[in-house]
Amino acid sequence: MNTFGRNLTLTTFGESHGPALGGVIDGFPSRIEIDLNRVQAELDRRRPGQSRITTGRNEADRVRILSGMLNGVTTGTPIGFIIENTNQHSADYEEMAHTFRPSHADFTYQQKYGIRDYRGGGRASARETAARVVGGAFCRQLLEQRGISIGARTQSVGPISATVDDCDPESNLVRCSDSAAAVRMIELIEETKRRGDTVGGVIALRITGLPAGIGDPLFDRLNARLGAAMLSIPAVKGVEFGMGFEGSRHFGSEMIDEFTTAADGTIETTTNHSGGIQGGISNGMPVEMRIAFKPVATLLRDVNTVTDTGKAAILHARGRHDPCVVPRAVPVVEAMAALTLADFLK
Amino acid sequence: MNTFGRNLTLTTFGESHGPALGGVIDGFPSRIEIDLNRVQAELDRRRPGQSRITTGRNEADRVRILSGMLNGVTTGTPIGFIIENTNQHSADYEEMAHTFRPSHADFTYQQKYGIRDYRGGGRASARETAARVVGGAFCRQLLEQRGISIGARTQSVGPISATVDDCDPESNLVRCSDSAAAVRMIELIEETKRRGDTVGGVIALRITGLPAGIGDPLFDRLNARLGAAMLSIPAVKGVEFGMGFEGSRHFGSEMIDEFTTAADGTIETTTNHSGGIQGGISNGMPVEMRIAFKPVATLLRDVNTVTDTGKAAILHARGRHDPCVVPRAVPVVEAMAALTLADFLK
Amino acid sequence: MNTFGRNLTLTTFGESHGPALGGVIDGFPSRIEIDLNRVQAELDRRRPGQSRITTGRNEADRVRILSGMLNGVTTGTPIGFIIENTNQHSADYEEMAHTFRPSHADFTYQQKYGIRDYRGGGRASARETAARVVGGAFCRQLLEQRGISIGARTQSVGPISATVDDCDPESNLVRCSDSAAAVRMIELIEETKRRGDTVGGVIALRITGLPAGIGDPLFDRLNARLGAAMLSIPAVKGVEFGMGFEGSRHFGSEMIDEFTTAADGTIETTTNHSGGIQGGISNGMPVEMRIAFKPVATLLRDVNTVTDTGKAAILHARGRHDPCVVPRAVPVVEAMAALTLADFLK
Amino acid sequence: MNTFGRNLTLTTFGESHGPALGGVIDGFPSRIEIDLNRVQAELDRRRPGQSRITTGRNEADRVRILSGMLNGVTTGTPIGFIIENTNQHSADYEEMAHTFRPSHADFTYQQKYGIRDYRGGGRASARETAARVVGGAFCRQLLEQRGISIGARTQSVGPISATVDDCDPESNLVRCSDSAAAVRMIELIEETKRRGDTVGGVIALRITGLPAGIGDPLFDRLNARLGAAMLSIPAVKGVEFGMGFEGSRHFGSEMIDEFTTAADGTIETTTNHSGGIQGGISNGMPVEMRIAFKPVATLLRDVNTVTDTGKAAILHARGRHDPCVVPRAVPVVEAMAALTLADFLK
Repeated sequence: MNTFGRNLTLTTFGESHGPALGGVIDGFPSRIEIDLNRVQAELDRRRPGQSRITTGRNEADRVRILSGMLNGVTTGTPIGFIIENTNQHSADYEEMAHTFRPSHADFTYQQKYGIRDYRGGGRASARETAARVVGGAFCRQLLEQRGISIGARTQSVGPISATVDDCDPESNLVRCSDSAAAVRMIELIEETKRRGDTVGGVIALRITGLPAGIGDPLFDRLNARLGAAMLSIPAVKGVEFGMGFEGSRHFGSEMIDEFTTAADGTIETTTNHSGGIQGGISNGMPVEMRIAFKPVATLLRDVNTVTDTGKAAILHARGRHDPCVVPRAVPVVEAMAALTLADFLK
Repeated sequence: MNTFGRNLTLTTFGESHGPALGGVIDGFPSRIEIDLNRVQAELDRRRPGQSRITTGRNEADRVRILSGMLNGVTTGTPIGFIIENTNQHSADYEEMAHTFRPSHADFTYQQKYGIRDYRGGGRASARETAARVVGGAFCRQLLEQRGISIGARTQSVGPISATVDDCDPESNLVRCSDSAAAVRMIELIEETKRRGDTVGGVIALRITGLPAGIGDPLFDRLNARLGAAMLSIPAVKGVEFGMGFEGSRHFGSEMIDEFTTAADGTIETTTNHSGGIQGGISNGMPVEMRIAFKPVATLLRDVNTVTDTGKAAILHARGRHDPCVVPRAVPVVEAMAALTLADFLK
Repeated sequence: MNTFGRNLTLTTFGESHGPALGGVIDGFPSRIEIDLNRVQAELDRRRPGQSRITTGRNEADRVRILSGMLNGVTTGTPIGFIIENTNQHSADYEEMAHTFRPSHADFTYQQKYGIRDYRGGGRASARETAARVVGGAFCRQLLEQRGISIGARTQSVGPISATVDDCDPESNLVRCSDSAAAVRMIELIEETKRRGDTVGGVIALRITGLPAGIGDPLFDRLNARLGAAMLSIPAVKGVEFGMGFEGSRHFGSEMIDEFTTAADGTIETTTNHSGGIQGGISNGMPVEMRIAFKPVATLLRDVNTVTDTGKAAILHARGRHDPCVVPRAVPVVEAMAALTLADFLK
Repeated sequence: MNTFGRNLTLTTFGESHGPALGGVIDGFPSRIEIDLNRVQAELDRRRPGQSRITTGRNEADRVRILSGMLNGVTTGTPIGFIIENTNQHSADYEEMAHTFRPSHADFTYQQKYGIRDYRGGGRASARETAARVVGGAFCRQLLEQRGISIGARTQSVGPISATVDDCDPESNLVRCSDSAAAVRMIELIEETKRRGDTVGGVIALRITGLPAGIGDPLFDRLNARLGAAMLSIPAVKGVEFGMGFEGSRHFGSEMIDEFTTAADGTIETTTNHSGGIQGGISNGMPVEMRIAFKPVATLLRDVNTVTDTGKAAILHARGRHDPCVVPRAVPVVEAMAALTLADFLK
């Protein structure tokens, strides 16, 4: 189903090459001031064609709000919105009408639905995340008004990892907070693009200001819901919290977060190996997680595949594609975090 | 909320030291033969006190089915069940009534609910997973009747990883398919236990026989739902699919799974880097994922903490605890996978 | 599915002639004092065998709480409970194993599930409402602590209607607030029973103390949710709010509820034709609705029917049955109202 | 929340005087041919300004489909659509910015949200049902392809009831199948309009071709879900099935539906007092229900009310309103029935 959340929900629709994308934000509290320029600014961060390391597809991605607001303030009724599609080269995809692109959703959609909109990936296109960014932008403003901040940044691109935190991630094209690593990441992406190849990476997410007590103890653990939110983003193949996989290689005596009392009387932990969540519920420390993205599957080179009748074929993608999805995925990660938290807090 | 799933659901209840645990399986198809001995056998695999590397707490964990079956066959009505608690040493926990155990859910429950059942961790005890195992055992039998098999095994304990696959994981105490690694894992757990410490690990899950086309394209991706299922298990701090985090360090040309046509005409992939899921939907290849468990937080040694009034305190846990949760978590991982798949397939 | 509600839910299980009925109350707030004697007292109001105008089946219907409470107070975790079945005459039903009772769910269950537990109606027995009464009894205490009262009473039995309100409905066997009508209703039920026949009736429900602003404007209107709650009770064939069907025969000028301001400044209406709900949301006036019950379908006389192979048959029910379901349905109506409101208020 | 259904859902948005209404149909099966002209034709049946007995507000109500279809066939992905608002006289409503219209949702919205879009009723306007009609029109075509027909007609207007069935309800302005009654109903509506008054009525719904076995036995009974669907339509104050309230005045011996076997071997009932539903599940006979609408609350005459500060006021509505909502509600009733059934059948 295409609805995210339980109490504050986002329902989205739209194919890459249809008339428009859009969505409905439901359950949003009333009387919240929303700066629509900031909503558009979030979309601009995800926009294709924003820099030389992203796809050449150039979409304006203007959001139009259709309901749920009165004089700049939410009314509590559902917020409908659309983003018209304007820059489509559907002809680029004719070759793919009967040929499955490897590691794309072409084959699995065909198996599930018996039909697929092959133009630009249809519904499976990462273009659908634009609607998520709109939903997340509303939620981010709601959360900020409650003192909660969400920040994601590129942690690694291929084998290159950030190790220091010396700049605003928005200050470079790759959205990394390590300025030296950022230079090398950009170089790697450009070189990869020249080869017609693609490269994966990891995004780090940090949520601050979240009060203790958020999350549900069993199936709706905060980590389960955040994890599912991130795993619903195209190309995500792994998530981890706090020390994550590395922590599993250690002893309890190295990993427990002992309690202490801060000067102001707040109970906090001296370390944050658990990433701000214990028993599925926030403990007041920053929530920290990492999200692994596989390399984009569209290579601008020959790949072996089969047609929908099972005949061997060679595909050479044209179209306009990102050599590395990570920089543009940073606002998508933030949006999914904002949607998840707003749903819990509502 | 304490319900898992949408169409085929499991709702559970019960505290570690209350009268009983239990649950309700709803939406289970009618006229499915269920072998209740096999349901009990799954519970026995999770049972405390099953071996020298698990907790000494010895619970019979007998399941009693209260509804939904007639002459060994399901009727389509909800299947209610309970497991009586029999071997409780609540006195072990008096010390913890006002002291928060580090990296446990004591503090977060108190923050969320303003009250907590401190005896044995109450609802936050991993003991609640017994109810999941019952639900999973029903679903496993349903899935088997459709040709789908679910198998989990211990991939690593602390720094020791399995590298070969030379034995039935059920043939050793640690449930590892690498017999030599299993010996070293067991030694490490025993030694860790002697030191009053604990150790983490990773479980690998493999699902075979799943047809292509299972999963939903957007928020209910098969990987998102499986990921959330695993992240809802106590102590899980990370999940990954196929090449996962390692795959994010590579190029697309190394990671795509090219298509080919098998002798019988089936379209399959020559590699399985994506772990059997593309675009959130199964592609007919085995689903492969790994789940990271942090070390158990209960150390049988002094730890620094605070009381519920914020006073510094030293806690020395007594009780009976697992030095490594991984071997007993193997059937829980399988149960959550079975519940997730049965919900999709129903 | 067998779960009622969204935020505060009740999931139930159990067949009439199985080992036990039960349920799980989830999402119930923490730190609410619950008097379990009052929970049992509600069950006693619904209990079979409570008077000469109800079924002779005599069940103790003792509820056993299994989780979610600590020292008389809720903890916020799910409240599991069971009611053992003790007085079953399954042999009474052997004749019905292959014969469909007219206007019962035998045929429709068989069509839906391909199997049914024919003993005592199985899951379709009104006995399942015992679990609803337990859930409702918890919610009623929660609502009372917020100043909300729920009261149902018998409005009519067959052609006999209450016209005045001169006694406590609990003061007579038929639970009617018109003492003279009550006498005639009881006589009608007894005479109907002697003839082996049954009779229908109407229950009136009144909710007071509900603040304005409860309910959702579109699909989860307060009236839609209350209506569905009542229509989910066995034998209910109609619901209406305020002036209901009668109001549809009138002009707007006769039906609108004009506003006025009370001495204390509260905005209220001078009439209550709308039954306390406008636009799906409570307006602070008493919520008033009526619920129509068909006559019980089990007649202690010959009826024409068919077997499960379609052969004509004559059925003569034995078993022990209510000649009029309405008196025992009064606490069930109250329970469903309490569950609905608690779900909205939570 | 603004989503209807569980497996096949409709999510709607939009205010009466905002830029547009719209919705998302999710979970709709793939490869279903949809005639969009018929979707528009359903909207035209609901359209304001369609005849002399409806409101003078004249909206084109053109639906624009934004996603989920390819070459006239559904793809299984969500179907997004919008209907632009074009003919708004917002100035008509300035007087109501601070005055509550009696028996409207003005006061209850204000209580719930602390804000309301007062122009034309905002979200509470029956105009939102246009989105339901679009959703229902898709579902109707799906159901027809499975042999299921849905037909509603006006049963009564004020005190005038249909008694015979001698014409196509679409052949007269009031959508009544009794041609003589239709003439009198139209006269009554016109006369009522001249007086600035409004009048209520009842719609009868009949569903044929529904196979036995549809519906869930407990809380999601077919009658509970159909009832809630109808009670979610603005102005509905009651619903009943089969013999409904009248049946509650009778004896079981008069009301049971005995079984018989048809010539073709089908098991059916000789009467249909239960309206096609037993135990919450369809029995293969026509589903029959009636839905009561209160008179529209907007009178074109002076009414007593209060302002939002509680001051007494007299309101004299202008705007353009229906003197009787029933004729235009017929397609809305059908749409809600189609949405409910498609959700069950999916």
